[in-house]
Amino acid sequence: MRDIVNFLFEVGILKKTPRSGYQFLGSGGESVAEHSFRAAVIAYLLAKNNPKADTQKVVLMSLFHDFHEARTGDHNYVNKRYVTVNEDKAVIDLTKKLPVGQEIVTLIDEFNSRETLEARLAQDADQLDFILELKRQQDLGNKSATEWLRYSVKRLITDFAKKLSDEIIKTDSSDWWFKKKEELWVNGPNKHK
Amino acid sequence: MRDIVNFLFEVGILKKTPRSGYQFLGSGGESVAEHSFRAAVIAYLLAKNNPKADTQKVVLMSLFHDFHEARTGDHNYVNKRYVTVNEDKAVIDLTKKLPVGQEIVTLIDEFNSRETLEARLAQDADQLDFILELKRQQDLGNKSATEWLRYSVKRLITDFAKKLSDEIIKTDSSDWWFKKKEELWVNGPNKHK
Amino acid sequence: MRDIVNFLFEVGILKKTPRSGYQFLGSGGESVAEHSFRAAVIAYLLAKNNPKADTQKVVLMSLFHDFHEARTGDHNYVNKRYVTVNEDKAVIDLTKKLPVGQEIVTLIDEFNSRETLEARLAQDADQLDFILELKRQQDLGNKSATEWLRYSVKRLITDFAKKLSDEIIKTDSSDWWFKKKEELWVNGPNKHK
Amino acid sequence: MRDIVNFLFEVGILKKTPRSGYQFLGSGGESVAEHSFRAAVIAYLLAKNNPKADTQKVVLMSLFHDFHEARTGDHNYVNKRYVTVNEDKAVIDLTKKLPVGQEIVTLIDEFNSRETLEARLAQDADQLDFILELKRQQDLGNKSATEWLRYSVKRLITDFAKKLSDEIIKTDSSDWWFKKKEELWVNGPNKHK
Amino acid sequence: MRDIVNFLFEVGILKKTPRSGYQFLGSGGESVAEHSFRAAVIAYLLAKNNPKADTQKVVLMSLFHDFHEARTGDHNYVNKRYVTVNEDKAVIDLTKKLPVGQEIVTLIDEFNSRETLEARLAQDADQLDFILELKRQQDLGNKSATEWLRYSVKRLITDFAKKLSDEIIKTDSSDWWFKKKEELWVNGPNKHK
Amino acid sequence: MRDIVNFLFEVGILKKTPRSGYQFLGSGGESVAEHSFRAAVIAYLLAKNNPKADTQKVVLMSLFHDFHEARTGDHNYVNKRYVTVNEDKAVIDLTKKLPVGQEIVTLIDEFNSRETLEARLAQDADQLDFILELKRQQDLGNKSATEWLRYSVKRLITDFAKKLSDEIIKTDSSDWWFKKKEELWVNGPNKHK
Repeated sequence: MRDIVNFLFEVGILKKTPRSGYQFLGSGGESVAEHSFRAAVIAYLLAKNNPKADTQKVVLMSLFHDFHEARTGDHNYVNKRYVTVNEDKAVIDLTKKLPVGQEIVTLIDEFNSRETLEARLAQDADQLDFILELKRQQDLGNKSATEWLRYSVKRLITDFAKKLSDEIIKTDSSDWWFKKKEELWVNGPNKHK
Repeated sequence: MRDIVNFLFEVGILKKTPRSGYQFLGSGGESVAEHSFRAAVIAYLLAKNNPKADTQKVVLMSLFHDFHEARTGDHNYVNKRYVTVNEDKAVIDLTKKLPVGQEIVTLIDEFNSRETLEARLAQDADQLDFILELKRQQDLGNKSATEWLRYSVKRLITDFAKKLSDEIIKTDSSDWWFKKKEELWVNGPNKHK
Repeated sequence: MRDIVNFLFEVGILKKTPRSGYQFLGSGGESVAEHSFRAAVIAYLLAKNNPKADTQKVVLMSLFHDFHEARTGDHNYVNKRYVTVNEDKAVIDLTKKLPVGQEIVTLIDEFNSRETLEARLAQDADQLDFILELKRQQDLGNKSATEWLRYSVKRLITDFAKKLSDEIIKTDSSDWWFKKKEELWVNGPNKHK
Repeated sequence: MRDIVNFLFEVGILKKTPRSGYQFLGSGGESVAEHSFRAAVIAYLLAKNNPKADTQKVVLMSLFHDFHEARTGDHNYVNKRYVTVNEDKAVIDLTKKLPVGQEIVTLIDEFNSRETLEARLAQDADQLDFILELKRQQDLGNKSATEWLRYSVKRLITDFAKKLSDEIIKTDSSDWWFKKKEELWVNGPNKHK
Repeated sequence: MRDIVNFLFEVGILKKTPRSGYQFLGSGGESVAEHSFRAAVIAYLLAKNNPKADTQKVVLMSLFHDFHEARTGDHNYVNKRYVTVNEDKAVIDLTKKLPVGQEIVTLIDEFNSRETLEARLAQDADQLDFILELKRQQDLGNKSATEWLRYSVKRLITDFAKKLSDEIIKTDSSDWWFKKKEELWVNGPNKHK
Repeated sequence: MRDIVNFLFEVGILKKTPRSGYQFLGSGGESVAEHSFRAAVIAYLLAKNNPKADTQKVVLMSLFHDFHEARTGDHNYVNKRYVTVNEDKAVIDLTKKLPVGQEIVTLIDEFNSRETLEARLAQDADQLDFILELKRQQDLGNKSATEWLRYSVKRLITDFAKKLSDEIIKTDSSDWWFKKKEELWVNGPNKHK
């Protein structure tokens, strides 16, 4: 019981761990927990789109893929050139006393291997969450985001993720709530009654 | 495709939506996305602990349970006394054009009904994430957190969650990394080589 | 006495309540208290400009118009489509034990009715404060602010407020301190002595 | 018209001007605008409590009393030992082109003179807002706030403000919403229906 | 000993003192400590580039040049038109009990006199740090930064600093890590092995 | 010239790099630049106290000791158990095109070797800055800071630093400005005139 509680406090540090890429991008920002949340939602959609994929595995991989960062911190592409992260040891130390520790380790290993369909979908979910953030910052005026986007999309593996990415680039990040609602934004919803 | 992209930008607003209870607590703070992330991790553990539970359902319910807040905002217990939130309409509007929209709606409805085993576990995951945050703030010196904890634990439904909660109250939120490592904190890991 | 103190702590939560529209705008940000402060200053100017207006009423209405948000939270235009806020109950609960409670309730009711000259001026003060913020964000590079401005100005009621709004759109938000002062910005004020 | 707009953008900088005392206190924090907002609300209550006081004057004085800080910045008690602030020049420069500029200057001068009943009430409103913040920080565990409180209350001038201050010290800053509501905090308001 | 400790806690307040110019610029931000850090690094480079300069003096002047702001706060160009800062008294009060107090005072006096080579280099280091920040904000989309840059470069004194400034204006603030590394940003450093 | 500019933008990223220990401590926070600033000031005092020490070397070592973190990120004691940081490569890459690159590398190597008097003083300056922050957080109510302090002081090398540390533990972090000034805090400095 104590081991589960310790594990949950540890996972909580991911809420306080900033994704370090945004220091370099110069605008935006999120925690590792925020990133993992939407990555898991994207993973669900990617898995549902592919009848061969095991949805539960893709979602759990996405939810767990950055667990090691509670102990290692988050490293951006610049950092990675100078830092060797022992992700395996971090994952083992954080899971070894858990009843489900072995399952978590296995899922993370599969994610990192990129060999199964599920791993590829979870890898793409990881990238797509970042691409959505970059598009948001581009829409808000950050010109560096445009260049970052160019590289990020090349990291995508599956066709469906690439098509989604093309659509993200073409979509204004405010469209979901702002588009074509003049009457509403002027007068508010009450006037519709 | 465009509908999926709009949905994902919408889910992204949960990264920017602060949980409003912390204004009243006076310390701490997190986004709805951060809360949903750990709630989903807790959900996984609760489901794995119960052989009768469908893990995938519990995890997805936890991941999705606050989706409506992208459109409605987050409401704490004070707010709820004065605000009627049309969660159903928010959930339908945000999912209706998605290929998997109906599944998401069904899962959220089940969560809110609190009738199935899976719904109860996801409800407890939601509370346990909050209890962990309150314990953290209590450890950091916020005395109000102690009183909030007293109420929060009473909202728990399942026995295992109640036991976990008892253990959370007894565990220092720093134990997972700080305990009994004098040599390490003084000299660093390099000296162990 | 205790009732006044409780009321004042309650009003203080408005300093900690973020205006939720900025999550969607993507830049900028302010508390409800900050908004109410400048709205009250604008209200003073609008009232002084109109010999028929009761200045005290317009200022107090502006100062008080978001009091209910201490209990309900702040709701943007997206939120309002899904949330029904019982402002009346919130206002009554927060004022009922105050010696001046009835006057506050009456002023807020008048504000919401939009029927008197004073109410219209206070409504415009509320919008003008937002228009000034949007212009500031537009000047800082947020393109969404341009579209928001287009809708916000249509909510204005009185002619003088509309003219002020036209002037706001044409004025650089830095002009008040930056314009034509080359010698000063290069050498500082000491060189003028 | 342009002069009014410039003035309003200038007043807006008070939303971005942090009150510098909190750097020294070590917790809490607010903008000058947030402080002025509640000071004006307190001013209203103090004036209403005193039949001889001109409510409008007390409220406006409180609303305007820190206008000069848009140009001078905010100075805490440590700063004031080393800094001479030409408040008069700042106030004149920011109001001189306004139609109501002279009235604003006169009100601020009266506030600073501390000679009239209205000025004394507005001075006390200024202090009481700070005392409420200090009490809040004390409740949240900041021990320095206790000492600061000891000095702040001695700056109060009127009897009613002193009595209010005594009551503030005795009141928990969470009482207004938290007290004696066990059923509610456990089950939420929906269960009351 | 106690005097040194008090001095060090005092210097620590510079970590919590925001540079007030950024309120007006509308984006970016830094503490006085952050500014002083890079100013000292720049000072080192400027001194090393000039064989006649005493490196230690230039570096220490830069490190110490804003010490008084722990007591006075930071004042931008607008503030300075209305505020007279007794920097000398602040510096004396903060150093008078230190064994090296006189040396610190002498260095700061020399910095302010702008008469020696070392003072001029330290003055330029102070400006160059600001010019680098303005260029960063310009690259991120803040148009006001362009105008500020125009004035800031005119404050530079030495030829080498002016040439550096010209180069800063022409350099993208992301070049140091982002330029021409397509393979790396797409695949990460691991693929190079 | 371009190489110097790139280097300076790179050093600027240290203003945006949070020291990661504070995520675990749960309160407080600072950038690497803020830490390096006061470490360099402490280094100056430690060197001046020791007639055998080369002041310039100790100050520059402290100023430069975390340069590598611009490329590697900041790693706390938990991180270091799982991460191998190639500091040497980071330092070489960031300095190799600088005219003074070799001197910087040599100073950082000496710092890391801990073999010379100057290196030991700079190492102690690094720790003492952290000890001052921990004491501040302890004074503000964070109980974990007490335990962290216990370990941090054991990392000190020189006698004078150990004595300073003893004095830090006994000194209230507010004493430098708050002590015994009742008249001043009540009435402000103007009343003294």
